[in-house]
Amino acid sequence: MRLTIVLFDGFTALDMIGGYEVLARLPGMETDFVAVERGTIAADTRRLGVVAFRTLAETSATDILYVPGGPGALRRERDGAFLAELRRLDATSTWTVGICNGVGLLGAAGLLRGRTATTNFFYRERLAAHGATVVAERYHRDDKYVTGAGVSASIDTALFLAELLAGTGIARTLQLGVEYYPAPPFPEQRPEDAPREAHAIIRAFEASGGAAAMAATPPFEYVDCDPART
Amino acid sequence: MRLTIVLFDGFTALDMIGGYEVLARLPGMETDFVAVERGTIAADTRRLGVVAFRTLAETSATDILYVPGGPGALRRERDGAFLAELRRLDATSTWTVGICNGVGLLGAAGLLRGRTATTNFFYRERLAAHGATVVAERYHRDDKYVTGAGVSASIDTALFLAELLAGTGIARTLQLGVEYYPAPPFPEQRPEDAPREAHAIIRAFEASGGAAAMAATPPFEYVDCDPART
Repeated sequence: MRLTIVLFDGFTALDMIGGYEVLARLPGMETDFVAVERGTIAADTRRLGVVAFRTLAETSATDILYVPGGPGALRRERDGAFLAELRRLDATSTWTVGICNGVGLLGAAGLLRGRTATTNFFYRERLAAHGATVVAERYHRDDKYVTGAGVSASIDTALFLAELLAGTGIARTLQLGVEYYPAPPFPEQRPEDAPREAHAIIRAFEASGGAAAMAATPPFEYVDCDPART
Repeated sequence: MRLTIVLFDGFTALDMIGGYEVLARLPGMETDFVAVERGTIAADTRRLGVVAFRTLAETSATDILYVPGGPGALRRERDGAFLAELRRLDATSTWTVGICNGVGLLGAAGLLRGRTATTNFFYRERLAAHGATVVAERYHRDDKYVTGAGVSASIDTALFLAELLAGTGIARTLQLGVEYYPAPPFPEQRPEDAPREAHAIIRAFEASGGAAAMAATPPFEYVDCDPART
């Protein structure tokens, strides 16, 4: 079974690695990292480079098409040739996975019209504009389309898909293998629970399309959000 | 502030990316991926390549020394020159971080003697053999040494360190940024809760030093572990 993970300049690494770490370990999985061109692809921080060993055009078909997000995905939403490649591979796939605003790339490619999908907290309105009905879930399945919320949700999403692909025993083995027994140091359970300032900073970060905004952010005292007003 | 993430052949990607995704976004952080030699470093699956842009020897000092684990770490425990580089950089660091059996590299370098540390579930006895007192925690601090449990614990560990470095507001902003509001599809809360077969498979995988064992694993029906006997 082939797993094709799509890279592009400005991807967010954990969107991709969380799913890779689970799915690439499924028995018999053949994993490829692909991009428009072969070579080193820079993540959004500009400090991490991951190698695409194959181009999208060199990939004739796949079983699992996996599209991460990141600030760089926003530019790709307007890249017709790139979106055509996603459509072409999606036509061959048994499963198509989108994580974070990578779900928006599936949407921009026209693959989610009339479907339900999740995405990252800050991207929900944009995804809806692509014709999908947005659900606020950690991961979600509509037919062969499996979508995940932001960044670290790639792990949960991949465990969900692993169970569909290989059964509960293997999926739980993979959970043990990556020791996914989370214990975050902060109490919030949902993006809505995060401090109000945190929301403003991440919105600015997303709007800036990259890493620059965070670097300029001074420390601040947090005020918990009022969920009723979020 | 400099963050130096150490790569080596056979590292486990999520050990490294979980921490990177949080810490590299701290305001003012200068992140470098380093290895014994520059170039593409293969992760344990042999399907992922990450670029080391600098060598360990070219790194004069760092503020945060970050050592992930992976099957390849076991070989490095016997690599005196590599361990000497870890000791040299640790002597310059404000914080030294080990994740998964990357904690064992710190141990093999002699940095954890008489200290408390956590590590992945399957590595606890080996870490104790390096002179550390092992605690079964998701993340743990002993003075400047911050250690994390297996693989995905890199996220929790980095959020913990982010709070120490930049305050609660920034750390919770980073939690929002990576949407770390986990909802694993399976109910277990601890490695001990995973199925008995899962334990056997992961132990074989760890013992084989790599990806081969998982690929040969047939699907199986799980039997929940009896925590009293684990």
